[in-house]
Amino acid sequence: MTLDLTADVVSLTAQLVDIPSVSRDEQAIADAVEAALGPLPHLTVTRRGHTVVARTSLGRSERVVIAGHLDTVPVNGNLPSRREGDLLHGLGTCDMKGGDAVILRLAATVPEPNRDVTFILYEAEEIDSAFNGLRLLAESDPHLMEADFAILMEPSNALVEAGCQGTLRAEVRTTGERAHSARSWMGSNAIHRAAPLLARLAAYEPRRPVIDGLTYHEGLNAVFIRGGVAGNVLPDECVVEVNYRFAPDRSEAEAERFVREFFGEYDVRVTDLAPGALPGLAVPAARAFVEAVGGPVNPKFGWTDVARFSALGVPAVNFGPGDPTLAHKQEEHVPIAQIEACERELATWLGRP
Amino acid sequence: MTLDLTADVVSLTAQLVDIPSVSRDEQAIADAVEAALGPLPHLTVTRRGHTVVARTSLGRSERVVIAGHLDTVPVNGNLPSRREGDLLHGLGTCDMKGGDAVILRLAATVPEPNRDVTFILYEAEEIDSAFNGLRLLAESDPHLMEADFAILMEPSNALVEAGCQGTLRAEVRTTGERAHSARSWMGSNAIHRAAPLLARLAAYEPRRPVIDGLTYHEGLNAVFIRGGVAGNVLPDECVVEVNYRFAPDRSEAEAERFVREFFGEYDVRVTDLAPGALPGLAVPAARAFVEAVGGPVNPKFGWTDVARFSALGVPAVNFGPGDPTLAHKQEEHVPIAQIEACERELATWLGRP
Repeated sequence: MTLDLTADVVSLTAQLVDIPSVSRDEQAIADAVEAALGPLPHLTVTRRGHTVVARTSLGRSERVVIAGHLDTVPVNGNLPSRREGDLLHGLGTCDMKGGDAVILRLAATVPEPNRDVTFILYEAEEIDSAFNGLRLLAESDPHLMEADFAILMEPSNALVEAGCQGTLRAEVRTTGERAHSARSWMGSNAIHRAAPLLARLAAYEPRRPVIDGLTYHEGLNAVFIRGGVAGNVLPDECVVEVNYRFAPDRSEAEAERFVREFFGEYDVRVTDLAPGALPGLAVPAARAFVEAVGGPVNPKFGWTDVARFSALGVPAVNFGPGDPTLAHKQEEHVPIAQIEACERELATWLGRP
Repeated sequence: MTLDLTADVVSLTAQLVDIPSVSRDEQAIADAVEAALGPLPHLTVTRRGHTVVARTSLGRSERVVIAGHLDTVPVNGNLPSRREGDLLHGLGTCDMKGGDAVILRLAATVPEPNRDVTFILYEAEEIDSAFNGLRLLAESDPHLMEADFAILMEPSNALVEAGCQGTLRAEVRTTGERAHSARSWMGSNAIHRAAPLLARLAAYEPRRPVIDGLTYHEGLNAVFIRGGVAGNVLPDECVVEVNYRFAPDRSEAEAERFVREFFGEYDVRVTDLAPGALPGLAVPAARAFVEAVGGPVNPKFGWTDVARFSALGVPAVNFGPGDPTLAHKQEEHVPIAQIEACERELATWLGRP
C-alpha cells in the first residue's frame, strides 16, 4: 500500500481510511506512513512498534508536537470510504484519519516550519492503555515527546477543545452456584442476580460540572457482559465490564471511590484508570495557539492523550476535523471543509507561505 | 489408555472418570471403549463418530437397549477421581460414568443374556442436540436402535425414574445504538436494557404439575449472556441464552408459545427444542422391568434420551447410580453401593448366574 502525499488532504484521508487498521492490526498502515515519510529529506523518522515519529531539527526556539492515532474501533459495515457531496463517509474518517491526513500533508509541504515540529502517528489508542503507542513512546523514548506545546488531532469540529475527561474501567461481578438447569432450584443463577446491577446502571444520573466556563458531562456504562458455563448449567458467575468517564475536577482516586460506592455490595475490580486533564488554557503557548486559530473553545468529553501530555508537563489541546459525537458510530463521517480548514490553519500557523 | 473390564465396577468407573471427555472431546474415551469391547467374541461392535454400539445376536424373543453417554460438562477443578469412604468423587462419577461402567461390566460378564442386548455408549449428550450421538445413530443406523424396551443409565439413585422433562433453548436479545462511551447520551445501551429482562427471569415462578402421580418441576434460566463491542463503545446488542425445562404434559409447541409470551416485547429466537416424555409405565416391558428391580418410581426432571426412544416408539426408563441433583455440580460424586446395586440388579435381570 503506497500513500501519495502530493494528493490533496481529502484524497489522502480516503487513502488512509481504505487501509483497515482496527486496534492491534496497524502493521499495514504504519508501514505505509513510514514509507511515505522516510524519503522526505527535512525529517528524521523513527519507528517504534507501529508508531511513527518524524521530526524537523531546524534549531527553532520552540518545538510543538502534532499527533494522531492510526487505529480505529472495530469495522461495522462502514468500509471502504465513500465521498458524497460535502462529506467523506467511513470508519475512521472522523476518528481520526482526517487529522492523520492533515499531519501527513503538513509534514510533506512545510519543510521549513517557523517552529520545530515533532509529528507522531501512533498505534492502539482505542483500547486498554497498556497498548497505547504514545504511552509506550513516553517510556522508551521520552525525548521524542518533549515540546513546549502539543496539538492532538482528535475530532473537535475543527475547533479547539480543551482538557479531557478521565476514564476508568472496572469488572463488576455477581456470583451464584452451578447446578443442572433441569433442577435449577438446587443452584443459584449469577446472571439473574445481575438484574439489579444493570437496573442501577440504567438509573444512573450523570454529573455535569462547569470548569473554567466549560460544561463537562460524565457517563457510566456497561461496555461488556459475559456469563455462562454450558447450555444446561446454571452459571455461577456474571461479569459486567463498566466504563466510567469522569470530569477533570475528579482525581483518579476520587473516580475509583465513586465507582466502588456506586456498586456497593458487588465485587469491583478496577482494570484501567487514566486521569482527565483540566482545560489549562492559561498556559502562554496554549493561549497563543488559540488566538492564532480563533473561534470558540469547547470542553472535551472523550479521554484523549492530552492527559498524557498534561502529565508530562506539556500543555496540550485537541484540534481536529470531524464531529466527536460521530466517533465510533456506524455512520461515522467528516465534513470535507473541516479537513481542509485544519490543514490551512495549521499550515498558516507553522508559516507555510 | 486401556480399560480393564475384569476390574470391579467401581475401579472401572474411576478408570472412565480419569479419561477426560468433555463434550466434543470424546475421542480418547470412545477409542478406549471400542478397544475394550472389540475382542469380546459374543458381541458385534459398531463405531459411529465417538459412539460405540455392541450387540448380542442370540435370537432371543426380546431385545433391550442399555445406553449411556460418554461425555461430561466442562471440568471444574474436579478431576481426577478420588475414592473416599463409601463415595467416589469427581467429574462424571454421577453423570454418568458409574452407569457406563455398569454397561461395560454387563457387556463383558453376561455373554449369554436371557434377552438380546444392544449396549450403546455415545457422544455429546450434554450439549446442543445437533451433536447428540444417539440422535445421529437413529439417523444413520436406525436398526441399531430397535428394541422392545430401553434403559438409560442416567443417574437416578439406582431407582427407576420415569418420563422426562422437555428442553427448549432460545436467544433473547435487546438492542440499542452504538456511541462513544465518553458521549454516552448520543447512543443507547443494550446491556442496560437487559435489566428488566433479567429481573423477569429472577421473578419466574415454576409450574409443578402432577402426572401419573409423579410431581414434575419446571425451570426457566439464563445459561449464557453476552454483549459488547469494544471497551469504549456503547453496546448495541445484548444476547441472553435461556433454557426452559418443561414438564411432559406440555408439547414442544406449547413450550415455545409459553416462552414467547413470557418474554413478550423482546426478540426471541428458538435454537434448540426437544420434547419431554410422559412416564409411560403402563407399557408391559416397562412394567416388567420395574417389577424386577423393585423400589419406588420417581419423576425424571432432566431431559434425557428416554424422550428420543419414546419418539421412536421404544418404551424407556432412566435407571442409574448417582444422585441427579449432583450432576453438573463441582462436588459431583456417586455412592459406591449404588454402582454395585445397579450392576447386580441388571445382571440378575439379564440372567447372570
